[in-house]
Amino acid sequence: MVTYIFTLLLIVCNFFIIFTLEPVKLGILLPSNSKFPFSIVKVVPAIDLALEHVNRSGLLPNHILIKNVRDSNCSETIGPLEAIDLYVKREVNVFIGPVCDYAVAPVARFAPYWSIPVISAGAPVKAFDDKSEYKTLTRIQGSYGKNADFLWEITRTFNWSTIGLLFNDNHKVEMGKTDNFFTMEPIYHMFKEKTGYEPYFKAFDEKYPLTYDIEDLLYTASMNARIVVLCASADSVRDILIKAHELNFDNGEYVFLNIDLFSSKNDSEKPWYRAGDTDERNSKAMKAYEALMTVTLRKPTSKEYKNFSMEVKRRAKEKNVNFTYGEEEVNSFVGAFHDAVILYALALNETLAANKSITDGAEITNRMWNRTFEGIYRQTIAANGDI
Amino acid sequence: MVTYIFTLLLIVCNFFIIFTLEPVKLGILLPSNSKFPFSIVKVVPAIDLALEHVNRSGLLPNHILIKNVRDSNCSETIGPLEAIDLYVKREVNVFIGPVCDYAVAPVARFAPYWSIPVISAGAPVKAFDDKSEYKTLTRIQGSYGKNADFLWEITRTFNWSTIGLLFNDNHKVEMGKTDNFFTMEPIYHMFKEKTGYEPYFKAFDEKYPLTYDIEDLLYTASMNARIVVLCASADSVRDILIKAHELNFDNGEYVFLNIDLFSSKNDSEKPWYRAGDTDERNSKAMKAYEALMTVTLRKPTSKEYKNFSMEVKRRAKEKNVNFTYGEEEVNSFVGAFHDAVILYALALNETLAANKSITDGAEITNRMWNRTFEGIYRQTIAANGDI
Repeated sequence: MVTYIFTLLLIVCNFFIIFTLEPVKLGILLPSNSKFPFSIVKVVPAIDLALEHVNRSGLLPNHILIKNVRDSNCSETIGPLEAIDLYVKREVNVFIGPVCDYAVAPVARFAPYWSIPVISAGAPVKAFDDKSEYKTLTRIQGSYGKNADFLWEITRTFNWSTIGLLFNDNHKVEMGKTDNFFTMEPIYHMFKEKTGYEPYFKAFDEKYPLTYDIEDLLYTASMNARIVVLCASADSVRDILIKAHELNFDNGEYVFLNIDLFSSKNDSEKPWYRAGDTDERNSKAMKAYEALMTVTLRKPTSKEYKNFSMEVKRRAKEKNVNFTYGEEEVNSFVGAFHDAVILYALALNETLAANKSITDGAEITNRMWNRTFEGIYRQTIAANGDI
Repeated sequence: MVTYIFTLLLIVCNFFIIFTLEPVKLGILLPSNSKFPFSIVKVVPAIDLALEHVNRSGLLPNHILIKNVRDSNCSETIGPLEAIDLYVKREVNVFIGPVCDYAVAPVARFAPYWSIPVISAGAPVKAFDDKSEYKTLTRIQGSYGKNADFLWEITRTFNWSTIGLLFNDNHKVEMGKTDNFFTMEPIYHMFKEKTGYEPYFKAFDEKYPLTYDIEDLLYTASMNARIVVLCASADSVRDILIKAHELNFDNGEYVFLNIDLFSSKNDSEKPWYRAGDTDERNSKAMKAYEALMTVTLRKPTSKEYKNFSMEVKRRAKEKNVNFTYGEEEVNSFVGAFHDAVILYALALNETLAANKSITDGAEITNRMWNRTFEGIYRQTIAANGDI
């Protein structure tokens, strides 16, 4: 009987605590389709970890973080509509995501007018550098602009002068530009600005393989540059490199760089191999890849990161028995979104301590910028709100 | 005393009628900046005329049309935000506007999910042809696609085979494409599709006159085509034509076509003349313009149209004493938006008669398509929702 009363008391107390805590609502906007490395099933377990950590830590003693997860569908329509719905129903204090450029653009345009911060591990296109338009957007993972900086440094290190760009893009203007185009865009502009010459570039539309000839692409590129930067699907890159091998372009005269920022580890560990292809082509591909340097996002190798990764995968499996993570370690979006929650909680804590409100999105955003903090990664957000 | 009671009764009756009528809310999304031919001050008086006409006509006996006017700012941010606000506050049954492509795109993407029709005299870019995405969008004025059809017909009539395109566009990708680009895009694709050859094209950025040389532009174009299609600001077109005159390109060997769909009449009646320029250049320009054919939107010449135009201008002046309309007749957007209200009222009447609801945006949209009706213009909306 005493145990019973005690248990009841405990439950009542818990309810009391929960109901007196002010909720902090994370509006999670990610795609449900698990083909994306930043899908709900892959990322939300990491957000849960961060959320539980913050709630346990006492960082926000009068608040409790809760999440409202919506399917952004990686869509310029559904993403913003879900954001609008969260806003209208007062179910969001901070948007976590979207990732896809076309989905995040309207959300990050509207958010300053709603005074709501947006934290994304995506939104990599250069347009989002302009924080006079995207006032409350914080980017917690590398952007295409940062990648261009990095590529520039590589070419300085090896003393390479002339680069050429080969990339996949949509022929049809109404389809918009591809991620590959947006990756190349700041590289082109950076080299043009720094060196004065215009890098050679050629786009092909890999949806229509009959509209271009890889041999032509390679010959023309080779007449303009010794350093060829590729940005396309893994299969297209492989086809180009096999052809390069056949044409003896992997003789040391040429260097191929592949920009593949967001691939999962499985994809990029043995990128030359295709189970369905012939031994001969796989062998050619393997040789050709020796002339290839791939630029991708760094992942930590620490024990903490391994544990984090294991726990995220365990939770993902627990919630979705039919889902297999498949990657050795979780991809870089997973850690970045975990850290987005930590960063927001730190900034909110300071904002409240300064007697400002949770509804002051500009203030909270301001406190997220120009700071270093410890999440899964040791993160530094620059004064411009980007990592 | 009797008069007093009678008047009181009349007022009470009026109130009673007004309050028993169900409001039909037109959400008007137009820019307040009067530099636009489709600005609030220019267009709303015409919408008022249409609205009063419908309310008097008995077409919707149990309803009363009212308008909620918002400043779209011709902006991809403010336009959608105002649309969202109207939707959330239940102040809109139909969106009239926006016009600007980047402003109307998100609104027309969201509207099907809100089940609200959108009628625009703008949204001319080819992307809006795709009604599987923009399900409730009706375009009541010519699109760039229609313009390409027309240009194709002209070239067939005169038996011209090879065209070249010279147009203004933004160098910087992050600034998006210009209206001039979007005008040229379907022309390029249509000629490529119909003839198999790719029309010569060259973009210049008129914001940076030092980045291009008009003489070069003309020489290169002349090596590729005898029919040169121009699309740029009136001043750029004039500069190009003066240079063409100096180079003797107006000797009958070449034809210049100028696409200038939305200019007001004042702009286009004496387009060669600039008060601030020298007599010599004005005279050169006048001669050069003899080799120029300008494609623009047709306006009716009927007495009804003249009366409509006068009444719109009178009302505009009445409401904004500081505003001078300045055009001989109101521009084509004004008539088109008037007709948008008539079209919506006709479709709503039929929808209600069929026992369907005013909230059934798909049904109302469906009844606006594939029909001919009398507004200020005699309008025919095709089965695809475009004029």
